[in-house]
Amino acid sequence: MSSLPFFHPIQDDLQRAEGLLQESAPDQHPAITGAVELLLGSGGKRLRPALVFLSARLCGADPDVALFAAAGVEMLHTATLVHDDLIDGSLMRRGAETLNARWSPAATVLTGDYLFARAAYLVAQTANVRLVQRFAETLMVICNGEIRQMFDGRGKVPTFQEYEQRIYAKTASLIALAAESGAILAHAAEETIAAMRTYGEQLGLAFQVVDDILDFVADEQTLGKPVGSDLRQGLVTLPVLLFLEQSGDHPALRQILTSGSSDLTVREAVQAVAASPAIDRSLQVARNYIREAKEALRPFPSSEYKTALLDLADFIVRRRF
Amino acid sequence: MSSLPFFHPIQDDLQRAEGLLQESAPDQHPAITGAVELLLGSGGKRLRPALVFLSARLCGADPDVALFAAAGVEMLHTATLVHDDLIDGSLMRRGAETLNARWSPAATVLTGDYLFARAAYLVAQTANVRLVQRFAETLMVICNGEIRQMFDGRGKVPTFQEYEQRIYAKTASLIALAAESGAILAHAAEETIAAMRTYGEQLGLAFQVVDDILDFVADEQTLGKPVGSDLRQGLVTLPVLLFLEQSGDHPALRQILTSGSSDLTVREAVQAVAASPAIDRSLQVARNYIREAKEALRPFPSSEYKTALLDLADFIVRRRF
Repeated sequence: MSSLPFFHPIQDDLQRAEGLLQESAPDQHPAITGAVELLLGSGGKRLRPALVFLSARLCGADPDVALFAAAGVEMLHTATLVHDDLIDGSLMRRGAETLNARWSPAATVLTGDYLFARAAYLVAQTANVRLVQRFAETLMVICNGEIRQMFDGRGKVPTFQEYEQRIYAKTASLIALAAESGAILAHAAEETIAAMRTYGEQLGLAFQVVDDILDFVADEQTLGKPVGSDLRQGLVTLPVLLFLEQSGDHPALRQILTSGSSDLTVREAVQAVAASPAIDRSLQVARNYIREAKEALRPFPSSEYKTALLDLADFIVRRRF
Repeated sequence: MSSLPFFHPIQDDLQRAEGLLQESAPDQHPAITGAVELLLGSGGKRLRPALVFLSARLCGADPDVALFAAAGVEMLHTATLVHDDLIDGSLMRRGAETLNARWSPAATVLTGDYLFARAAYLVAQTANVRLVQRFAETLMVICNGEIRQMFDGRGKVPTFQEYEQRIYAKTASLIALAAESGAILAHAAEETIAAMRTYGEQLGLAFQVVDDILDFVADEQTLGKPVGSDLRQGLVTLPVLLFLEQSGDHPALRQILTSGSSDLTVREAVQAVAASPAIDRSLQVARNYIREAKEALRPFPSSEYKTALLDLADFIVRRRF
């Protein structure tokens, strides 16, 4: 993804963030160094650091300071993935084995904790108290959302509003933070910070809806993990929500949501949803978010960074991975 | 412990910290609220917040700001305990069931993460960048130490220096942070901050040595958990280290450290160590740390806060819980 045209204006920034992410702390245990290499080397999209840099360049923040926010946000994202994969029992991500597929739960928990600490350390290096506070708040939102989802239990069919709250907590909150980071570091006007935040929030909601669509229609090779993962865990995402709204019921789906999933029922349900109009309707929801995201950028004067943010928004609903 | 005389000068501060710790974030899931009540209600010693307040009062920091550091350090401590107990499979702490004794590993991991975020949020409320950085660094030290201990594996007999490094990471690093917090918030001179840090570090080392002694000689009722917990997990602490140095070998101990523990072998080994001179020699090590801690306070002028810190240090090696 880093070769995509909208990453060009910040290619050097991203490279520096990569270097900072791979740096070891003094006395760091080799196991942590290995885990960081594994996690960061498996080719994440670097969407969040890119947003920090584009926002910083657009709003006029010091890129040397934005660097720490960019690395911090990616490290925080990585830390949440480590614990998420452990909790979900996911064995593959981005086409590579997850940490919990190789390590004990205990080692995985501790490594995730270490990465949280490292993320906090990186963000604190910006010396911007407001940004540090926003990071902590965002991590609270993310964990709170995960806990809510866990206690909701298997097969709960959410309202659209509940679904939106969930994907806000899970994905959009951190992407919104990335987007507003540059504006916060630039000490921009409150309405500028709010505009960047809205852009990120809407972009993040669209990003997660597309993720949820891809879990039904993607090519597994491209996706880097099995399709139907959410369904297998009894998690109802937008495509299923809209499918149930239209079709009322489906035997395989019903069975997965009420009692449990087998490979056969998951495959059957995935095919039914993938072939239904629920996919296009979900994509329409994502497009609406993207329209709002782009709308939020209207007040900004033209620049290569604004163009990149607009193109990035369009890309989110076109992506296949 | 909060009724002990050296807590009197900061009784009101501690009460306010208690209130802040129990506050709920907006939209906080009831499960988290319940977990926080359970964890904070089970009667921790509140040693760390007390140190923040005594240090703040001694160095002249604003107690309204120190409040956030005090609550933050206790929340961070609580978060680490949640994950520690999960990893160790501990079912009892402070005479109450641990979170992992009641909840699934997944819920326990997420609740710990939430508490980390809440700790970061509380500390960020001090608006003191240096303190936030020190918090993040300390959490890295703690996690790194835990990972080192885990990869060392069962029954490794450390050198004294390795033992000291381990208990620094595990306990003294956070107690040192608590003690230096007040000085940092007071924008005290660097040598004052360093003195408070040394006090906390030495106090923390003594605290952990005493903890390790109590794991052999305490009354289980008073301790609130079974004795011999460390040994049961194959962890060699100072009393065992000194016992092995003197006695060379012991069949039950050897078996626990090399192959595994049964209730019988643990009881036998605990009794052997408890009855040996290794206990008094360990206590002597703790007393030496306490002497260093008190020495670090020498440059401070007399005050009720200095007296409280000195008395607190003496208490650490007298305590039975």
